[in-house]
Amino acid sequence: MARVYNFSAGPATLPEEVLETAASELVEYGDSGQSVMEMSHRSKEYQAIIDECESLFREVMSIPENYKVLFLQGGASLQFAMVPLNLFKKGKADFAITGQWAKKARAEAARFLECNIVASSDDRTFSYIPELDESKFDKEADYFHICMNNTIYGTYFHKLPNTGDVPLVADISSCILSEPIDVSKFGVLYAGAQKNIGPAGLTVVIVREDLIGNAREGTPTMLDYKTHADNGSMFNTPPTYAIYMCKLVLAWIKAKGGLTAMAEHNKKKAAILYDYLDNSKLFKGTVEKNSRSLMNVPFITGDTDLDKKFIDRCVENGLVNLKGHRSVGGMRASIYNAMPIAGVEKLVDVMKKFEAENI
Amino acid sequence: MARVYNFSAGPATLPEEVLETAASELVEYGDSGQSVMEMSHRSKEYQAIIDECESLFREVMSIPENYKVLFLQGGASLQFAMVPLNLFKKGKADFAITGQWAKKARAEAARFLECNIVASSDDRTFSYIPELDESKFDKEADYFHICMNNTIYGTYFHKLPNTGDVPLVADISSCILSEPIDVSKFGVLYAGAQKNIGPAGLTVVIVREDLIGNAREGTPTMLDYKTHADNGSMFNTPPTYAIYMCKLVLAWIKAKGGLTAMAEHNKKKAAILYDYLDNSKLFKGTVEKNSRSLMNVPFITGDTDLDKKFIDRCVENGLVNLKGHRSVGGMRASIYNAMPIAGVEKLVDVMKKFEAENI
Repeated sequence: MARVYNFSAGPATLPEEVLETAASELVEYGDSGQSVMEMSHRSKEYQAIIDECESLFREVMSIPENYKVLFLQGGASLQFAMVPLNLFKKGKADFAITGQWAKKARAEAARFLECNIVASSDDRTFSYIPELDESKFDKEADYFHICMNNTIYGTYFHKLPNTGDVPLVADISSCILSEPIDVSKFGVLYAGAQKNIGPAGLTVVIVREDLIGNAREGTPTMLDYKTHADNGSMFNTPPTYAIYMCKLVLAWIKAKGGLTAMAEHNKKKAAILYDYLDNSKLFKGTVEKNSRSLMNVPFITGDTDLDKKFIDRCVENGLVNLKGHRSVGGMRASIYNAMPIAGVEKLVDVMKKFEAENI
Repeated sequence: MARVYNFSAGPATLPEEVLETAASELVEYGDSGQSVMEMSHRSKEYQAIIDECESLFREVMSIPENYKVLFLQGGASLQFAMVPLNLFKKGKADFAITGQWAKKARAEAARFLECNIVASSDDRTFSYIPELDESKFDKEADYFHICMNNTIYGTYFHKLPNTGDVPLVADISSCILSEPIDVSKFGVLYAGAQKNIGPAGLTVVIVREDLIGNAREGTPTMLDYKTHADNGSMFNTPPTYAIYMCKLVLAWIKAKGGLTAMAEHNKKKAAILYDYLDNSKLFKGTVEKNSRSLMNVPFITGDTDLDKKFIDRCVENGLVNLKGHRSVGGMRASIYNAMPIAGVEKLVDVMKKFEAENI
């Protein structure tokens, strides 16, 4: 079968060129006589790979020198605990609740500190980013947490809250590397790899150095940022192959023109889909226009049987994983960096035909 | 360059056939039209992969039904915290100290409970497995911990302690799948994947069901075995590709005749090396005979310059990663399942020639 267009929310489509490269050097990497999977993480060959990966990350995201880039495991879900355990000082934090992941981040943090909800969009199925009233911000909070792009609901923080001296912490799992971001505005950024970075099993944490080294008493060693910062992410064996894949993806992004080019590419793709949705008589987007995500586009027909029929039609056309999350229903097109414009165009073509048949 | 013989302690050599299969289906898995790395972990295609992986694990290791097999992240180092956090009842545990990893397991556990050292082989650089005096075992301990195979020192517990009702917990990172093991004798078995299972970034935990669900208050959700047991290791996105590789390795083991065949193969390899060492006038093994590991064979010449010269000679002959751990010095040949007999024979050939030149 030919390669499908995979609209999965994550793990998600990867650049075909990257997969081809990985396949070609899977058995033997360069002249090392071994697979990257077989390399001792303490070898010169592997050190060069992880160093290049970090260096590409810093270059592509313009990460300031006073931030560490950590290659960890456990996904964003483990960060939900690591953030409060590492940033714990006074024992309270502020949260904007914009979806299930933001809720989960808060629920986990609430096991370790007092969690204040500054705003929530729960009232309308998280279909918008709520206004954040700065007068409600706790100036004594250990951190202020947002989920920057909400994968399930397709919303995005186009404007960041001004949290002053309180570190802004963001889960950027589903928007990392999709457009330029001013890292200096954040205390901690974290992301599971399985959307825009590479395969699942790698978590990238970008943390301002002054926030490292203050972990709460009783924090497991492996959950202390300092453990990993002091050891170049090699306190124990890191997920070596996932880091290698990440390096390939970053090199691909750089070759394409970096995050400015990615943003252009992603805006073009999203516009094709949103423009069609805004004019369709059958399909409609579920998100308020000024909160729309470039990465995840949920939409519905308003008729669950028709939704199902449409999803089946997509599969017949080689467009897979378009079923929406059960909490929103309908469809969701995740159009990360690696989704080509042709994939979105094909989706809109299928939508148009389906609309013509069903209106 | 031709593939080398890689004697790395981990990440380690993988079966060439497995790597070839992985390479051939990296871009497109079966008729799915996508890479395994791109598959939604909630898809039917991926569910089939993780189910087959678990089922092969159960079959190959003869795991009783009252044990869960969990696919986690974070390596053995994270288990050093998860074990005490999950098995905490009275707040004390017994440890046999047979090397650096056993010491680390104890040091981490000591942050959460009282840790008693039942025996240690620290007095002679961990070159043997100490006798365990059952009268010293604490009958009230929450668990008894051993590191079954000591990767750095090349020792192995050929006889298990009889801990009665106290759950025996073992780090089996470097001996899992190397020979049959009676799982029913253990409360918890855990292993990082990067030696005999597959690529780094996957941790396998085999845990008796009655030991799940009692995590100490304040245990992060992701560190609670129950979180993963209740969700088929899919509470969040698991390391999907590493699990797929594990499935391929298990299928390879099964095709070769399972763990009985692996044990035969490994004994044959180890015998070639140990027999030579026992008769060499230049090289000698560092481990007491009755404590020798089948997986990791450390040896020395007694002259560090000569050791270095020998390691260089090995590299010239396509035999890599033979340098011993800095705490033991000399050489170490890790000869996991995937190391062919030809690799060990070639090593002994090079040793013989080197001996002839240097005696």
